[in-house]
Amino acid sequence: MFNVDNFLHDEALPASAKWTGFPLYNFIGGHNDEDLIPIEKLEEASKKVILNHGHILGKYNYTGPLGYLPLRKFIIKKLLNGASMKCSEDEILVVSGSLQALDLVNETFLKQGDTVIIEEGSYGGVFSRLEKLGINIKGIPVEDDGMNINLLSECLEELKAINIVPRYVYTIPTIQNPTGTIMSKEKRIKLIELAKKYDVPIFEDDCYADLIWGEERPPSIRALDDSKRVIYCGSFSKSIAPGFRLGYLVADWPILSRVLPYKTDAGTGGLEQMVLSEFCENHFFDHLTKLNQKLKLKAITMCEALDKYFGNTVEYKKPIGGIYVWIKMPDGVDTSKLYNIALQEGVAINPGVEWSMDKKNKQKMRLCFANPTDKSIDEGVKKLAKVCKKEFGVPVSIANIN
Amino acid sequence: MFNVDNFLHDEALPASAKWTGFPLYNFIGGHNDEDLIPIEKLEEASKKVILNHGHILGKYNYTGPLGYLPLRKFIIKKLLNGASMKCSEDEILVVSGSLQALDLVNETFLKQGDTVIIEEGSYGGVFSRLEKLGINIKGIPVEDDGMNINLLSECLEELKAINIVPRYVYTIPTIQNPTGTIMSKEKRIKLIELAKKYDVPIFEDDCYADLIWGEERPPSIRALDDSKRVIYCGSFSKSIAPGFRLGYLVADWPILSRVLPYKTDAGTGGLEQMVLSEFCENHFFDHLTKLNQKLKLKAITMCEALDKYFGNTVEYKKPIGGIYVWIKMPDGVDTSKLYNIALQEGVAINPGVEWSMDKKNKQKMRLCFANPTDKSIDEGVKKLAKVCKKEFGVPVSIANIN
Repeated sequence: MFNVDNFLHDEALPASAKWTGFPLYNFIGGHNDEDLIPIEKLEEASKKVILNHGHILGKYNYTGPLGYLPLRKFIIKKLLNGASMKCSEDEILVVSGSLQALDLVNETFLKQGDTVIIEEGSYGGVFSRLEKLGINIKGIPVEDDGMNINLLSECLEELKAINIVPRYVYTIPTIQNPTGTIMSKEKRIKLIELAKKYDVPIFEDDCYADLIWGEERPPSIRALDDSKRVIYCGSFSKSIAPGFRLGYLVADWPILSRVLPYKTDAGTGGLEQMVLSEFCENHFFDHLTKLNQKLKLKAITMCEALDKYFGNTVEYKKPIGGIYVWIKMPDGVDTSKLYNIALQEGVAINPGVEWSMDKKNKQKMRLCFANPTDKSIDEGVKKLAKVCKKEFGVPVSIANIN
Repeated sequence: MFNVDNFLHDEALPASAKWTGFPLYNFIGGHNDEDLIPIEKLEEASKKVILNHGHILGKYNYTGPLGYLPLRKFIIKKLLNGASMKCSEDEILVVSGSLQALDLVNETFLKQGDTVIIEEGSYGGVFSRLEKLGINIKGIPVEDDGMNINLLSECLEELKAINIVPRYVYTIPTIQNPTGTIMSKEKRIKLIELAKKYDVPIFEDDCYADLIWGEERPPSIRALDDSKRVIYCGSFSKSIAPGFRLGYLVADWPILSRVLPYKTDAGTGGLEQMVLSEFCENHFFDHLTKLNQKLKLKAITMCEALDKYFGNTVEYKKPIGGIYVWIKMPDGVDTSKLYNIALQEGVAINPGVEWSMDKKNKQKMRLCFANPTDKSIDEGVKKLAKVCKKEFGVPVSIANIN
């Protein structure tokens, strides 16, 4: 009988386990509120585009390899409105989710042994990608107003001293993942100045930028840069639905023309692009308002549950947008360990070490609140507190424990 | 100003040119007949799934990382019906087009310097992928009933003599691309025997297998193998629409569990999976019958045009399925050169060298006929003949030339 092990290289990724369903209390993943999927309006949009333009599906990339033109036109409008960024149709590449944007940029610019600079705490999928590629990662701590620019400056200087040019500075400046912070306009400008001084590209990931509650967001870094060095990506996964695998990569044509050849997937889903563009053209901003109202309430539910069941043993900053809260657990708690035992009780959390290059983040964890119901948030956090108390002795007392 | 060239490695792919639209006479690409996109039925399906199950879009991979369960169930039915292959839900991975299947299998099994065996003439995207990865390719000639098994045997023996185990034998056995041949059942069995003897996996690409006109197709190689060494892929791009980016990778769990970790795209398009599964459940086989009737007529149109304008200067085998015809041009014609000059006249062809590892295929070319109208096929082939005559002196005379 065939044995696959004989055909795998040493560096093969470990085997997947069989999927057994989502955990009952699912505080991980970028899932969205299922009640806020705009079903009726998506159906209307779908009907219109299929009946009027369905023949388009007969061709790969009907309006070119950069993606469906009406969707690119909407993205232009949206980026001007939200990120104060002007761009043209040829500067936008529709991708199959922003993860594809990460892969394309990495394929274009990175080679084993290269160095990149990223925020010390960042999206787990960024770490796993860079590690798989054998990239040296330099981490910059994040403050309440974004990346610590002085430490970034030092890092660039140190690398320069040993003749290393980082391939890019990657940042999630607007609702940073996992800290939830927004980089100030001042820091954005300083970041661009540094990038110019050391001649480094900036890779700006604005995936959560649509989910801001109330505050004015600063212009995107790409909008503030006049040296055409910023590669920007965004997504509809968080603003509409992750089931649509649609994101966008934005860059000036000299960059985009070097990234595009790596997109060898024969195009991003045509039906999803058509339906989404039709929906967005008419309802995007209204939908976003509704979604943000609900997410803000869910964040409150999550914070209340944390306060209720963990009391003052946990530290966190109240979210100002996004779908997660970044929590510092008490001394002695190892969230990787907590992850394993909580999962057995049906509670899934993101342990800090996966969202960070700093192993001291064993004390941290990320909890996502967009998908679970209010009831589920309350019950799940309660259960998590019980598990945590049993394993680590904290919190010492839990409200309303039977 | 930023200069991207400073950040690209030597092996970077050449820059993309800006897209300027499809050529007027487009005989390349796997595009489908636009009139046969089942618009009304897709709209019905879409309405039903969005209104009844639209909330599913709120989660990544709602029914697990292998893809939407109802679609996997349909694929099981379809593979049993068409390819005589039994499989279970855990043996099917829905992918974003079968090109993703190629990428995933390559990522899992291949490393620079590895060797694979493929048909000497094969899909251009396979060659470009393998070349990018730095893989040694051994080519096996294809006969009317499929791969030359004796030469395959010799190749395996030669590789063994120098201690090289090929990572897989890749084949498109059913409507081979570009030759349009079907590998006989006898050869499929012999291929499996060889693969067992030399302990090599087989990678069976059945992307065109739904498009057979009249003939009974043999069971898939995977259906005939009892040693669990066949990785199989297929696609809905050709049977429904390429605008749906949906294909499937089929393998026993010990293999699939090693491939799945490389699918880090957070899932294949949810809406497209839902709509397609609903459509297929009710209409797939009827639709296929209609599509094949039309494709068969278009193949006739293409052959008639070739005969009319090229006379007996070209050699080709009449298609028995699929969407292309593989043509041998007269001595002295270089189809790569023809490609460039024909394109300026609005006629796009696939030059043989891109579909082959054999440089003598300069004389060959592939013409696709599914997308262009009958009128366009006739006009385009006429124009191609004129261009060819002007450049290469053949055909000597062309019918109905004004």
